[in-house]
Amino acid sequence: MAKELKELTPRSENYSQWYQDLVIKADLAENSAVRGCMVIKPYGYAIWEKMQRILDDKFKETGHVNAYFPLLIPKSFLSKEAEHVEGFAKECAVVTHYRLKTNHDGTGVVVDPEAKLEEELIIRPTSETIIWNTYRNWIQSYRDLPILCNQWANVMRWEMRTRLFLRTAEFLWQEGHTAHATREEAEIEAKKMQGVYADFAENYMAMPVIRGVKSESERFAGALDTYTIEAMMQDGKALQAGTSHFLGQNFGKAFDVTFVDKEGKTDYAWATSWGVSTRLIGALIMSHSDDNGLVLPPHLAPIQVVIIPIYRSEEQLNQIRQKVDGIVANLKKLGISVKFDDADNRKPGWKFANYELKGVPVRLAMGGRDLENNTIEVMRRDTLEKETISCDGIETYVQNLLEEIQKNIFQKALKRREERTITVDSYDEFKEKIEQGYFIMAHWDGTPETEELIKNETKATIRCLPLEGDMTPGKCMVTGKPSARRVLFARAY
Amino acid sequence: MAKELKELTPRSENYSQWYQDLVIKADLAENSAVRGCMVIKPYGYAIWEKMQRILDDKFKETGHVNAYFPLLIPKSFLSKEAEHVEGFAKECAVVTHYRLKTNHDGTGVVVDPEAKLEEELIIRPTSETIIWNTYRNWIQSYRDLPILCNQWANVMRWEMRTRLFLRTAEFLWQEGHTAHATREEAEIEAKKMQGVYADFAENYMAMPVIRGVKSESERFAGALDTYTIEAMMQDGKALQAGTSHFLGQNFGKAFDVTFVDKEGKTDYAWATSWGVSTRLIGALIMSHSDDNGLVLPPHLAPIQVVIIPIYRSEEQLNQIRQKVDGIVANLKKLGISVKFDDADNRKPGWKFANYELKGVPVRLAMGGRDLENNTIEVMRRDTLEKETISCDGIETYVQNLLEEIQKNIFQKALKRREERTITVDSYDEFKEKIEQGYFIMAHWDGTPETEELIKNETKATIRCLPLEGDMTPGKCMVTGKPSARRVLFARAY
Repeated sequence: MAKELKELTPRSENYSQWYQDLVIKADLAENSAVRGCMVIKPYGYAIWEKMQRILDDKFKETGHVNAYFPLLIPKSFLSKEAEHVEGFAKECAVVTHYRLKTNHDGTGVVVDPEAKLEEELIIRPTSETIIWNTYRNWIQSYRDLPILCNQWANVMRWEMRTRLFLRTAEFLWQEGHTAHATREEAEIEAKKMQGVYADFAENYMAMPVIRGVKSESERFAGALDTYTIEAMMQDGKALQAGTSHFLGQNFGKAFDVTFVDKEGKTDYAWATSWGVSTRLIGALIMSHSDDNGLVLPPHLAPIQVVIIPIYRSEEQLNQIRQKVDGIVANLKKLGISVKFDDADNRKPGWKFANYELKGVPVRLAMGGRDLENNTIEVMRRDTLEKETISCDGIETYVQNLLEEIQKNIFQKALKRREERTITVDSYDEFKEKIEQGYFIMAHWDGTPETEELIKNETKATIRCLPLEGDMTPGKCMVTGKPSARRVLFARAY
Repeated sequence: MAKELKELTPRSENYSQWYQDLVIKADLAENSAVRGCMVIKPYGYAIWEKMQRILDDKFKETGHVNAYFPLLIPKSFLSKEAEHVEGFAKECAVVTHYRLKTNHDGTGVVVDPEAKLEEELIIRPTSETIIWNTYRNWIQSYRDLPILCNQWANVMRWEMRTRLFLRTAEFLWQEGHTAHATREEAEIEAKKMQGVYADFAENYMAMPVIRGVKSESERFAGALDTYTIEAMMQDGKALQAGTSHFLGQNFGKAFDVTFVDKEGKTDYAWATSWGVSTRLIGALIMSHSDDNGLVLPPHLAPIQVVIIPIYRSEEQLNQIRQKVDGIVANLKKLGISVKFDDADNRKPGWKFANYELKGVPVRLAMGGRDLENNTIEVMRRDTLEKETISCDGIETYVQNLLEEIQKNIFQKALKRREERTITVDSYDEFKEKIEQGYFIMAHWDGTPETEELIKNETKATIRCLPLEGDMTPGKCMVTGKPSARRVLFARAY
């Protein structure tokens, strides 16, 4: 494993290869036999489960309930919302048959042409259409509103170029779909869920995010407004970490979802939708990890503390075990997940490297001298700093250290973003800086044409119109036309 | 709602219609626009979430970890295991295309024939094939074993006749897939998971089950042995509630999954798989519910206690609220989920009927006289018995009552099963009794031919060879040939 660790490409050499190496070597995920679809391995899935639990609690605290809607959607539903179909038609997997027949010439199974579906079905790329078709029967009166549903599900988008976690044909996500009696209430909901995502990103993933609203071209297909949280990765590129859409009455109209309001007037229901996905695991990796492996924030680490015994004899191991058992029990009482790794088929050095690779926030090690001195060695993964301290009160020390690590990696990511976020007024400087991996606040004339031109020439997109920051007007860096405010540009994943 | 309640068909009149009515009226699930695929509504999904949490904890306690494998499986994989393909080929949804194109003649979207997949993909009906294809790369040595993975996922089987929860084209489930170095270890694992399922069924669902092993014809396609738990529904029919399969080396051989054992010898890995699904919700409903609605076991009820105020004025409501707030807080401290329903748009009578329909185990009601007397009315859903008791110590009373209800509904179901399980020696009596809804222990000559004949003539199948009970040999009730032991026959869902 020490050997395998060496094979992790350094970030400075090839950031993209480093990411790919890390995902594989840390046992997070791998490619499957189906192009673009990944296998999420147990260690990667354990991170997703932690994310799910925390997010699900937050959704419930804000009044949402979970439900489940069909995987398959009639093809015709997709075309009911004009913009939605434009956004998704080209990347849909289409089910046309429902039966195979065994071929007795030895070639296995073939599609039975007799069993062609009357109407083709698509595998959901997102569920607005099937859900709003269902809501039509759930909503008659304002008393039936709001409906605040979420679903945890797999979705499928046939992407041409895929990367583990960041962009895969199938991915896991949650999608909230709410229906409201008023425009205002729906807008509040969409912004509230953006807030929930931002809180999760910053306080659990330790990943600072910029909250903003998307430009028209970058909106979700069918939305009037898309609220986003954008994070900066270590290479200065942006990653869209979560979006919350105010959908207006578009889906209400497309699926004829009407209700009678308090005054007896009939109106279409107002909608939002919002989602985050297994992409967040990619964001987590690229925010904090280093050339030695993963750096996981303690709030999301499947194993928060690992304890490794260093021993010369079975007798010494038993002495260490005796000492460590109490520490393990006390840490568990504090709600800390801890693993005592006394496997005898691996040397301590291998274990050290392995848990560094796996990003375990705190490593404790105890050897013969520690036994004599009632001490233990503590290593923190974020800074790789080691110190030897007394076993008395070690549990509280570790508890505090986990919180400090959580804060430290957030601060480190925040500092990086602040250092690499600049204000630019000339398009030449923009081109130069975007190449070097910066978030750039620049003036833009507000037209999709200029946005498109910038994108084509520099690969930079408008990540968002930040909710906070400089709101003074100016002149577009490209056309010189009036600009209402600076917007955030970056290259993005 | 009182009106709607009346519309619940009585069980004695039409058991099947009663079930259908109840699923719809209790807001558990409904049919979707896609034939055979259901929408699981929030109240139904809340029960599934409770099931998931408990099962997931049990899987982890027994050493399993979660992972996630692709939804889509290359068609050719299915045919690698000869029996497996025979079992599933006819009910697979097949994906043949991955792109739609917008049709500008106004008819929406059509399949783009240019974007036909090179190899067709099926939507997983179960994941043995894709998982064992993945395991090939995970397993080299006995040190890599056992692999103890589970996944929570949706699967698709194109069933002709569907019923909400009991048999749907898409359903949610968990599927465990384990790999072992020895036959013995895999057999122990398969039996262990049958035990986990039985424990869950009996202690959480309050549903007594018979543990047994399937006859050859009823085995999972590709298994050497299928361990099952079988429950009796109120109409005397059996429901297979969970299965755990010992797969031998069938998938190891089909996907060439070999390992080097301790002696340096190469062998194929041994496999198990095991699963339970949203079908359990159907089983739960049909085990305990009555003509007034659901009866949920307290261990799985999303709302365990509902408190309803009965008031004449806003002032009186406030007094009740003050009194009830403390009770609610204390119940929550005991880990009991409680809802205080003070909605003013519904009368208490409507609420009573509604929570009966929803199966809330304990209902508390407080009115003006209760306020004066420091009392509260307690109604238990399982027996519909009411009593008025002092508010002092009400929390402990309710806590104990919930446990009593849990036990009572289990005992009631057990008593029913015992009364309706009989031993039969003549085929004529068998035919008569099976018609009346009995579990029948009878002798059978052990041949698939006799099994098939019985099935065709009586619609009864061998549910299992029970692990416990009468093991004495006898004569087959049909052919008179020797029978090794009695087996369990029933009609089944």
